[in-house]
Amino acid sequence: MAGNSFGHLFRVTTWGESHGPEIGCVLDGVPPRIALSEAEIQHWMDRRKPGQSRFTTQRKEPDTVEIVSGWFEGQTTGTPLAMIVRNVDQRSKDYGDIAQKYRPGHADYTYDAKYGIRDHRGGGRSSARETGMRVAAGAVARKVLGEGIKIRGAVVQIGPYRIDRDKWNWDETEKNPFWCPDKAIAGQWESFLDGVRKQGSSAGAVIEIQASGVPVGLGSPIYDKLDSDLAGALMTINAVKGVEIGEGFGLAAEPGETAADEMAMGNEGPRFLSNKAGGVLGGISTGQDLVVRFAVKPTSSILHERQTVDRAGKNTTVQVKGRHDPCVGIRAVPVGEAMMACVLADHLLRHKAQCG
Amino acid sequence: MAGNSFGHLFRVTTWGESHGPEIGCVLDGVPPRIALSEAEIQHWMDRRKPGQSRFTTQRKEPDTVEIVSGWFEGQTTGTPLAMIVRNVDQRSKDYGDIAQKYRPGHADYTYDAKYGIRDHRGGGRSSARETGMRVAAGAVARKVLGEGIKIRGAVVQIGPYRIDRDKWNWDETEKNPFWCPDKAIAGQWESFLDGVRKQGSSAGAVIEIQASGVPVGLGSPIYDKLDSDLAGALMTINAVKGVEIGEGFGLAAEPGETAADEMAMGNEGPRFLSNKAGGVLGGISTGQDLVVRFAVKPTSSILHERQTVDRAGKNTTVQVKGRHDPCVGIRAVPVGEAMMACVLADHLLRHKAQCG
Amino acid sequence: MAGNSFGHLFRVTTWGESHGPEIGCVLDGVPPRIALSEAEIQHWMDRRKPGQSRFTTQRKEPDTVEIVSGWFEGQTTGTPLAMIVRNVDQRSKDYGDIAQKYRPGHADYTYDAKYGIRDHRGGGRSSARETGMRVAAGAVARKVLGEGIKIRGAVVQIGPYRIDRDKWNWDETEKNPFWCPDKAIAGQWESFLDGVRKQGSSAGAVIEIQASGVPVGLGSPIYDKLDSDLAGALMTINAVKGVEIGEGFGLAAEPGETAADEMAMGNEGPRFLSNKAGGVLGGISTGQDLVVRFAVKPTSSILHERQTVDRAGKNTTVQVKGRHDPCVGIRAVPVGEAMMACVLADHLLRHKAQCG
Amino acid sequence: MAGNSFGHLFRVTTWGESHGPEIGCVLDGVPPRIALSEAEIQHWMDRRKPGQSRFTTQRKEPDTVEIVSGWFEGQTTGTPLAMIVRNVDQRSKDYGDIAQKYRPGHADYTYDAKYGIRDHRGGGRSSARETGMRVAAGAVARKVLGEGIKIRGAVVQIGPYRIDRDKWNWDETEKNPFWCPDKAIAGQWESFLDGVRKQGSSAGAVIEIQASGVPVGLGSPIYDKLDSDLAGALMTINAVKGVEIGEGFGLAAEPGETAADEMAMGNEGPRFLSNKAGGVLGGISTGQDLVVRFAVKPTSSILHERQTVDRAGKNTTVQVKGRHDPCVGIRAVPVGEAMMACVLADHLLRHKAQCG
Repeated sequence: MAGNSFGHLFRVTTWGESHGPEIGCVLDGVPPRIALSEAEIQHWMDRRKPGQSRFTTQRKEPDTVEIVSGWFEGQTTGTPLAMIVRNVDQRSKDYGDIAQKYRPGHADYTYDAKYGIRDHRGGGRSSARETGMRVAAGAVARKVLGEGIKIRGAVVQIGPYRIDRDKWNWDETEKNPFWCPDKAIAGQWESFLDGVRKQGSSAGAVIEIQASGVPVGLGSPIYDKLDSDLAGALMTINAVKGVEIGEGFGLAAEPGETAADEMAMGNEGPRFLSNKAGGVLGGISTGQDLVVRFAVKPTSSILHERQTVDRAGKNTTVQVKGRHDPCVGIRAVPVGEAMMACVLADHLLRHKAQCG
Repeated sequence: MAGNSFGHLFRVTTWGESHGPEIGCVLDGVPPRIALSEAEIQHWMDRRKPGQSRFTTQRKEPDTVEIVSGWFEGQTTGTPLAMIVRNVDQRSKDYGDIAQKYRPGHADYTYDAKYGIRDHRGGGRSSARETGMRVAAGAVARKVLGEGIKIRGAVVQIGPYRIDRDKWNWDETEKNPFWCPDKAIAGQWESFLDGVRKQGSSAGAVIEIQASGVPVGLGSPIYDKLDSDLAGALMTINAVKGVEIGEGFGLAAEPGETAADEMAMGNEGPRFLSNKAGGVLGGISTGQDLVVRFAVKPTSSILHERQTVDRAGKNTTVQVKGRHDPCVGIRAVPVGEAMMACVLADHLLRHKAQCG
Repeated sequence: MAGNSFGHLFRVTTWGESHGPEIGCVLDGVPPRIALSEAEIQHWMDRRKPGQSRFTTQRKEPDTVEIVSGWFEGQTTGTPLAMIVRNVDQRSKDYGDIAQKYRPGHADYTYDAKYGIRDHRGGGRSSARETGMRVAAGAVARKVLGEGIKIRGAVVQIGPYRIDRDKWNWDETEKNPFWCPDKAIAGQWESFLDGVRKQGSSAGAVIEIQASGVPVGLGSPIYDKLDSDLAGALMTINAVKGVEIGEGFGLAAEPGETAADEMAMGNEGPRFLSNKAGGVLGGISTGQDLVVRFAVKPTSSILHERQTVDRAGKNTTVQVKGRHDPCVGIRAVPVGEAMMACVLADHLLRHKAQCG
Repeated sequence: MAGNSFGHLFRVTTWGESHGPEIGCVLDGVPPRIALSEAEIQHWMDRRKPGQSRFTTQRKEPDTVEIVSGWFEGQTTGTPLAMIVRNVDQRSKDYGDIAQKYRPGHADYTYDAKYGIRDHRGGGRSSARETGMRVAAGAVARKVLGEGIKIRGAVVQIGPYRIDRDKWNWDETEKNPFWCPDKAIAGQWESFLDGVRKQGSSAGAVIEIQASGVPVGLGSPIYDKLDSDLAGALMTINAVKGVEIGEGFGLAAEPGETAADEMAMGNEGPRFLSNKAGGVLGGISTGQDLVVRFAVKPTSSILHERQTVDRAGKNTTVQVKGRHDPCVGIRAVPVGEAMMACVLADHLLRHKAQCG
């Protein structure tokens, strides 16, 4: 209710600040007797971990996940699954200056205005460090979904440069530091981001998440539609400013004749002849691939001097040092995948409850 | 939980099908002693009412709202405010054909797959007729917000034609049947939609909703961010496929130097020198105008014959007669405003609870 | 959140006041394809209906239930099931006096203090008339539970007179106007209540609800224990002041040697050798009969003059006329059964979701 | 939803098992800028801590609370307040036997039946050890309520021996190991419990919690009544089998003339001439003292041999060694106080939201 939980039957609650002793989460509603190891969760944590290339923050955090509850002899017990990651590389001194100044594009001013107090160290609660626990939760959600449902993400645009969808190759996403599915554009992004980084600037991105193997029937119309819950969930990721499903905004310009996906019988039942809907109709999954995209704004912390005000109400300027991702969109890929996994796990349990 | 409620402290639950006896809603959490008349609610209902121009459905529904609970001597009582609208112009016969066939782009197939049963008459529960109650709820939400907060919507794109933002004039939105703020483009849309209608086709649209006077501090990070709740809420509107806040997807292509809004002291405290964020930072309102846009796909019911399957698993074709909006995006404007009002009312109460 | 809903997956929301146009409820989460008729619901409504004997209120309400949503061709559709009952025998004039005076034992003063406004007619929202919709919801809940689960209630105490549990005969409950399972005490209650009625007084009662056929495993520790949810649910019934499970308060005086039910293998798995726990251990059903009791205070509206204050803050006296139950506990039996049914239906769906 | 959270606006979620590395909780919705120290929380933790007299378990746990989130420079920040207590004195070997056998009166059988897996060590999640975090949450809730609201508890019955209410002296509760307000009966309890302990038996108890200074107006009719939420909350405490408000079950035997509390004007507004209602009418606080009682069954773990079954479905006997409270009711006092505090804090915020 105060905003630190999401999901209903697969319910995730997180806590922790960027420079506190730990970040953590508790998952309530996890089905019992799911075989699970810390290593399996760590696999996904490592994909989001900072410092893996020169295009992400240089903060060194091993992000070692520990399960502290709800897990017995290698299985989930049905009781709350709690996980923590201890913070080890806080450098709060880097942030002394911003205790008093509101960094443009950050939540400094709004947190202060709302709460009248703010843990400014590393952005405190508003730091993207919190997303580490989403990835941990997403790892468990994947286990709940089972191996038949496959969730993958890719960056499809960095700055003004988009991939060529005809060249999409999932294997490529593991071979470059951008989760880029188009080999050709990956090289271009590398030069572009090197320039951005040297200029002390930053770049935005668009990320696409796909889920295959999703059964038909997930989603709860009217207000908990699958696409609505996905949109809301992705919009909670730091710096996200837009979300679209299937053809998304492009559908506004299409004529009715081509916008709706036609159907025909296939070997395993009804199938669609296209997927402009992105796998959702009426808020319910169609059985086709789920396809969602979200836009991430450029990292707000840049080395340039920006005009702002301080807590005392004086005009001033601020130049953010710290260690920042030149393009936060890159590390948003595993986070977006995790949010998709959590939303699907939640709806899978909800569907079982009402219609199972 | 099963999807027919939204909001937490200002909580709306709706019921009713397109061709049932009534549609209704119950609002729980409405503050007591708010002066309210049925006429005030009717004012907003009338803006969404079908049949107001040749560009919307010709179904004739007076959409007369009745308050049946929670209202005493012209004031809210703090107990559940229930409202109903009786359906009067159902023509279920128009839909006999679609009892067996899945209309492309509609929820027919997914409802059947999920529930194993479907009230096919007029789309049943999945019909946009349900949005009438959202407008009723939104009318009450506006009263909760008070006169200082102003919520307005406009269509900014129909088919491939976008407005010129420099020509934005709110007064114009009341003078054409499209809620179009740009006089010049309104004429162009008229011709375009006449063509669309004559061809038995349909068109998509992009709608923008703005709220001014929103105080700084609304929104609950991390998972109930104001923008996340708005995105989720707008995505629940029928046929919506994308949502963006502020500059939205455009921010992905911008450099960090211009993407974050700088600040300076104004007469009434800190202010921003631009509003690319669309009025939200870190999930909390900044005090600037809230600006959100959503994309509506073309009406799926068109007069053209489309390829599909039937309930028995046979290939077939379908041609939808009925009475449909050539561009459902138009009537989505008052619905989008209503959803914005409801989300804000909910967050206003939530803010009062924790920080008031 | 504002208190007019209960349950999570089988979620009931009610509205309506004693003297408004209707009372109603909407059930969200009802599984689809349950065969259901209005007559089946009416069967249970009729058991709570006022005016059935001289021991209940003489208000004449047919309490005819109408399903207005979520029901198609005799089956539930999985979309919200809404039901209404139109009020027909309001006599608001009887209540003119109490518009200004706070009746002792009623919610008049507290509603006024909380909301600053109060629909005083017949008690408005705080009237037990609201419980009619609980019975309607309970009728649907019974269908969700299926025929294997049987829920029955009985009055076990009126005023100071308790039944003899050794003489418990369920058949008797249908033969007297008190739902009394002990034929001998029923006669005694009749004389007692005739006296109470003639003196313009009222009497309290204790009701017991039992559910048999409940599968082992329902309930969600720690905070949504089955017994906790039952206790909370029963305590929401008007005038209820105490709830106990199994041996309840009696267990406080027992030694550990006899308090815990021993186990042994039976033909169909583990069974218990006694049922002092009332069918719940650790918040989870044991498979034995669920046994709960709740205490109902005497009807607060009596013909005697009582000391009170008015809205203007003056001392005064009040004598309540109207038409009241001499013992509201009697009509609480079908309501208690309904609450038990709703709680079980909710937990059945929750169990399916997590462990099914 | 899966049962490990309670409260809505002041929302508590707990995790941890008796013999796991830690128990913990996260509180979401805590208002910002409340001055708070770990020592203040520890003060309340120490009252529940085991091993303080020979009448409670001899497990040695310092129960040192650590705040790990939501707390900055000695104040709450409005972000989730997470707290942990590390387990230090687990002796899992004591429990080897019960891995396979179902202890009568415990949750062993029901957890196994529900989840198909069970952390048997010390009762795992079903252990009363979890209540430590409730006390931590309650300590924060008290700060939210402020000093004007005072919450105190006492034991009013152990085994068959009740206190004499006329001799109630709150000061006495701090002078004996039973939280007993009646000096005379405390001595009797001591002899009684020494006997119980020596016989390897156990005893039940009744606890009363009172809150003074509660403002009129808290509580959300119909389904989140203050008394309903209190009853539900107290019933979640381990081993609780009954709850009553005010005169509770006693009211069933009273005539209407004396059951409803009359009113008269006092210096500070309306007051009641008695408090049989226990401070709640219509689910809303009256401004009088809140008075609730709950019954705790005897500790199920006793040294006597009891008949039971094992996981393999064989009849067997079990004799529980471990270190147990001869009367768990005693340590339930600070837990009951904490639940009262949490329920009130939640309703205080809810009231502010809707009516503030």
